[in-house]
Amino acid sequence: MNVDGKQMRPIWFDNESKTVKVIDQRRLPHELIVADLTTNDLVIHAIKEMYVRGAPLIGATGALGVYVILVQQGNQGADDAWFTRECARLRDARPTATNLAWGVDRVMGKALNASGYDARVSAALKEALDIVEEEAVNCRKIGEFGLSIIKDIAEKKKGQPVNILTHCNAGWLACIEYGTATAPMYTAFNAGIDIHVWVDETRPLNQGSRLTAWELGKHGIRHTVITDNAGGHLMQHGMVDLVIVGTDRTTRAGDVANKIGTYLKALAARDNNVPFYVALPSSTFDWTITDGIKDIPIEERDPDEIKYVQGACNGKILSVLVPPENSPAANHAFDVTPARLVTGFITERGICGAAEDAIMALFPEKK
Amino acid sequence: MNVDGKQMRPIWFDNESKTVKVIDQRRLPHELIVADLTTNDLVIHAIKEMYVRGAPLIGATGALGVYVILVQQGNQGADDAWFTRECARLRDARPTATNLAWGVDRVMGKALNASGYDARVSAALKEALDIVEEEAVNCRKIGEFGLSIIKDIAEKKKGQPVNILTHCNAGWLACIEYGTATAPMYTAFNAGIDIHVWVDETRPLNQGSRLTAWELGKHGIRHTVITDNAGGHLMQHGMVDLVIVGTDRTTRAGDVANKIGTYLKALAARDNNVPFYVALPSSTFDWTITDGIKDIPIEERDPDEIKYVQGACNGKILSVLVPPENSPAANHAFDVTPARLVTGFITERGICGAAEDAIMALFPEKK
Repeated sequence: MNVDGKQMRPIWFDNESKTVKVIDQRRLPHELIVADLTTNDLVIHAIKEMYVRGAPLIGATGALGVYVILVQQGNQGADDAWFTRECARLRDARPTATNLAWGVDRVMGKALNASGYDARVSAALKEALDIVEEEAVNCRKIGEFGLSIIKDIAEKKKGQPVNILTHCNAGWLACIEYGTATAPMYTAFNAGIDIHVWVDETRPLNQGSRLTAWELGKHGIRHTVITDNAGGHLMQHGMVDLVIVGTDRTTRAGDVANKIGTYLKALAARDNNVPFYVALPSSTFDWTITDGIKDIPIEERDPDEIKYVQGACNGKILSVLVPPENSPAANHAFDVTPARLVTGFITERGICGAAEDAIMALFPEKK
Repeated sequence: MNVDGKQMRPIWFDNESKTVKVIDQRRLPHELIVADLTTNDLVIHAIKEMYVRGAPLIGATGALGVYVILVQQGNQGADDAWFTRECARLRDARPTATNLAWGVDRVMGKALNASGYDARVSAALKEALDIVEEEAVNCRKIGEFGLSIIKDIAEKKKGQPVNILTHCNAGWLACIEYGTATAPMYTAFNAGIDIHVWVDETRPLNQGSRLTAWELGKHGIRHTVITDNAGGHLMQHGMVDLVIVGTDRTTRAGDVANKIGTYLKALAARDNNVPFYVALPSSTFDWTITDGIKDIPIEERDPDEIKYVQGACNGKILSVLVPPENSPAANHAFDVTPARLVTGFITERGICGAAEDAIMALFPEKK
């Protein structure tokens, strides 16, 4: 995607140095720093500490991480036990996004099927890069299908801008290209439709105000940062035409795990008859579970992510303590929006309703 | 209230220096600074810039502000036009809280009825101090009535702590004593009931994590700071027994204007069958209006309150910029929770349902 005239992705394989490289998203929007992931520990650290985040990108990082594990292992006789143990460690780096296990397992399976170290390495790299490209293609398709929703609203509004609210960052920084939730926005903007995006800042880590605002701004899309508290008020006053969010894991029945606070926006959308769509590649469906509130593990992260806020001050990036030092904080990172609050899913195969039969109609092979 | 063993209020009249003094709440929890309000400009500045905030405290500050105006005017012949103009300017310092106009008008009326400058000054001071004491008494009564709700839940939970969620700061810092939303909490805690409070941080100005956490901590009440996004998830998982919030203005039909984001918590409470109470002194009712969404003006504040976050860093209080510098932000400070989402009101006269007939049964003189 476009960053000051340069094409960028949040993760890539550098052919010259044979290195996996990622944008360290913790420093955005104030610094654009690239990190090399040369060991499994570094890959896990990058996932845990959120250099990379967002379900599709975590999946792609996990996929390329299996290649990193193999390179790190070296050609010293194939110790499958060590390799699979390291893959398991990588798979567990974060619990909520289903894409991580999916990406790791898919590449690990291909590698284990290849015979000989070199074949294993190149099978892993090929499979991981295939995943990366598939995610890019999926996002492009999500954008095309989502465009129809925005176009319909634009036609009804006759030249008035379409106001879209999004939570967290399900943009290209969370994916490879286009993003998931943002893909329909980029596609609509590129098609000349007048859109404006309400960007939830998304506490505690402010992925909305730091990342979504940054990437929309770099692309020239009009947007306004709001607190996570504001969406309900805006909807009450007709200032939101459409909500689109991403997801970290969605059950086969349509329950949606996404960044904490998504559920509150879904409730407000329902209360105000605002369509609430979830954009996702099918790799984010967890086909094995139905009840999201019961069955999706919700990651609890370091309370200091709430107590300290990072930003720029006099050219430096600093963290400031907001509450009293000895007040405890609790940091549940995700919540689950029940399918009943979701208008529909925008996937790489098309749009479907948020119910098991509707999802199965689009993905009949998962029945 | 108790601050490190010293009794404090957020506003008081210092008899020796004949000065109105307030805690500058912008510096809490990291610094406890007292400001002297010696001119109307300083009073208005303290209200606008939120040295003082919270409906009852804004009302009390407006009331004492009328006394400040009179002292500033001096005994140079009674220019009623100047006096009422200054009172009007004070009344307009912030638009949403109804208590401000109520406090200013009540003291102004008393002053204008007195004959001669000295009588006018002492009538204004007496009326303002009466308002201050009435608010303290009202909060104490709100605490006593609210106690019954917490006691009932505690009995059902048989020794398990009662988990109460609150948004923003409707504590003693927002009032005079006890607070409104916190009054039942202080009263229950003092009665030996085991309570734990979920404190919404309350973006953008973090009155929850800065002020509510501070005052609960100073009193020894167990609490946990959470993001504004977290309440829905906690309610889904049975971790919230009760929500109590304050209000800046409530219509005679029970629509509740309060800090932005309150509406989202009310939606989540309704979706999870969690009782949602609003605590208020009757001075916060606006008896002249019915439809809160249509008729309550919602203040829009400086977008920099969203873009910059203030906190402590290496012993200094700093502000850090979170989003990209050129991303715009919108700062609607309040929202309106429709009466249909409110379980009941806790007032100084007792508890009533959130409907005009129930409110009128408690305040028949307002019919």
